[in-house]
Amino acid sequence: MQKKNIFILGSTGSIGLNTLDVIRKFPDHFCVEALTAKSNIELLEEQILEFSPRIVVVKDEKAAKEIQKRIPGKFDLFIGDDGLIEATRVGDYDILLSALVGFAGLKPTIEGIKRGKRIALANKETLVVAGEIITELCNKNNAEILPVDSEHSAIFQCIVGEESKEINKLILTASGGPFFGKSKKELSDVTVEEALKHPNWNMGSKITIDSATMMNKGLEIIEAHWLFNLRKEKIDVLIHPQSIIHSMVEFIDGSIKAQLSLPDMRLPIQYALTYPERFESSFTNTNLAALKELTFFNPDFDKFTCLKLAFDVMEQGGTAPCILNAANEVAVEKFLHGEIKFTDIPELIEKALNNIENHSEPDLETIVECDRLTRDFILE
Amino acid sequence: MQKKNIFILGSTGSIGLNTLDVIRKFPDHFCVEALTAKSNIELLEEQILEFSPRIVVVKDEKAAKEIQKRIPGKFDLFIGDDGLIEATRVGDYDILLSALVGFAGLKPTIEGIKRGKRIALANKETLVVAGEIITELCNKNNAEILPVDSEHSAIFQCIVGEESKEINKLILTASGGPFFGKSKKELSDVTVEEALKHPNWNMGSKITIDSATMMNKGLEIIEAHWLFNLRKEKIDVLIHPQSIIHSMVEFIDGSIKAQLSLPDMRLPIQYALTYPERFESSFTNTNLAALKELTFFNPDFDKFTCLKLAFDVMEQGGTAPCILNAANEVAVEKFLHGEIKFTDIPELIEKALNNIENHSEPDLETIVECDRLTRDFILE
Repeated sequence: MQKKNIFILGSTGSIGLNTLDVIRKFPDHFCVEALTAKSNIELLEEQILEFSPRIVVVKDEKAAKEIQKRIPGKFDLFIGDDGLIEATRVGDYDILLSALVGFAGLKPTIEGIKRGKRIALANKETLVVAGEIITELCNKNNAEILPVDSEHSAIFQCIVGEESKEINKLILTASGGPFFGKSKKELSDVTVEEALKHPNWNMGSKITIDSATMMNKGLEIIEAHWLFNLRKEKIDVLIHPQSIIHSMVEFIDGSIKAQLSLPDMRLPIQYALTYPERFESSFTNTNLAALKELTFFNPDFDKFTCLKLAFDVMEQGGTAPCILNAANEVAVEKFLHGEIKFTDIPELIEKALNNIENHSEPDLETIVECDRLTRDFILE
Repeated sequence: MQKKNIFILGSTGSIGLNTLDVIRKFPDHFCVEALTAKSNIELLEEQILEFSPRIVVVKDEKAAKEIQKRIPGKFDLFIGDDGLIEATRVGDYDILLSALVGFAGLKPTIEGIKRGKRIALANKETLVVAGEIITELCNKNNAEILPVDSEHSAIFQCIVGEESKEINKLILTASGGPFFGKSKKELSDVTVEEALKHPNWNMGSKITIDSATMMNKGLEIIEAHWLFNLRKEKIDVLIHPQSIIHSMVEFIDGSIKAQLSLPDMRLPIQYALTYPERFESSFTNTNLAALKELTFFNPDFDKFTCLKLAFDVMEQGGTAPCILNAANEVAVEKFLHGEIKFTDIPELIEKALNNIENHSEPDLETIVECDRLTRDFILE
């Protein structure tokens, strides 16, 4: 296998760090074309020194000056959102690891798709808000999306060698988050600190709150809908608190295939980079006898309204998923800043969905506009 | 898909009945070329009337006369062990469903392999006693073996689309049988009735006793060794009392794939007939939330000596697996007839292994002779 150049969109986040850990393990197979960071200049500097990327993207002029002072002139430096887009347009890479948080990941990811690259997709919002556009662009440009989310990677692994017409149902597992055992009433009083304590995964704050509201699973079912081209009726959610089975696929003959391992994001990341091959690694060593039991429960749609809203917007289509996503991003920010209660998150989202017009078959401009409108609506 | 002719070796047993149930569900895809029965003439008559096979094989002259009296002259009738071999040699079939019990299945199965047919293999003894010969014959004649055992079918399904060199380990699950919770001491007093009560599967008496001693799992690891061409170190056994996960495969990157469903033999049988396709059916409908939990334990090799013996003979190779199998068949018969205690089964097998010479790279004659010798040894 020829050495693959990786463009990492979001290298200082949790997925970015795990990706660099995988690349570190296989120096003969992978090298880093680009690193991008928002605010963590110190970490970015360390990463640049270790991986010698050809391209670096930072948030603004101030960060650019800072990084140039620290490591002068060994790479092309791009700045801001436009810089991100430009870098993905001109970079010499084989795989675009798309791991920015939220809506911001959409446009640079589209550049990678337009160039027919492999997209290792961790930024689920890309498919949530613009699934139709992305799917068309992938087909047109012969780009392939490899899922990095553990759930979608599990499904992708389970359908290797199988016919998609023989899939009966996807079963996305969910840990249930930190509030699985709480009553609906108790949810209104939870603190930011409690919401940030995920039982199984160590992730960024936005996705951790999304796990607590189960909006993360909601975004994932919409992502699965586009990745695997399946209708709402063919996508189920199953609570599995141990997060060992990462998801399952039921086939038309009743056979179910599951992918499992101890939770470690390096495994799905590595698979997205090495597919169709698997490389030997020892990130996880799963001993089921030591784990003793795996348990399963149906999700409570009444308690976790976000999950219900996600199923609804998946059916509605158009810009509804974009409204859901934008409203959620702003509401989560507000919750993290102590401005609203935990249970206000789904209420705000529902309000946005009821007040902002849904456009069917939107183009990219319409989506960007809808995203902006929704954010303004929630901020007011 | 063209209609496939199925030759059912052992149509009145548990696997035979389940196979006919699958064929019954897909009359446009499958028809029955041959039915064979040992003693249950009444059931055989019903099956002949329903499925109109071109060939029927019965145990002896008496059974032949009986069946000819009941349904005269609509099929070719073969008699005895030689008749079985002749029928598999001349029959016009696409798939040989090999479901005789024990060593008896070996020779007719070989005839199917020599003709380059698909073998849907339920008779694990074929691979246990003659794995090397069978594997060579399959390669030479371009015959394919599709596993019917739920465990091997699970593994086969998990490696579809994967590279065999990327398999790290097979994890065969075992229910643990009816005596999983008993102490080693308690095992010596169990009755035939207790041993025949399998917690999850409804099967014939020989295989049910094998499940109680865990020799069934022992035979399965040897079968897996040949089917998937993996060394002893790459095959694990895991106790999973619910029998929902039918087996798993761990890959070199640490990812594990599992196949699961409620226990129903029609699922793996159907897959062996329809592979590489899956046909829509509703034999099983697995609801994990309703099942609530799946549990796992390490096997106790000290308590279930048969399992340890099987791992040992797999390593020794030669005729050792044949000795193990023959000794087990006779010992189980003796136990079923109340002649020996449950714990005498592994002791007799161990005695046979210590007293009968192991021949490496045996030909078929040597295997047949070794089988006979071992049976005589145990009977004395």
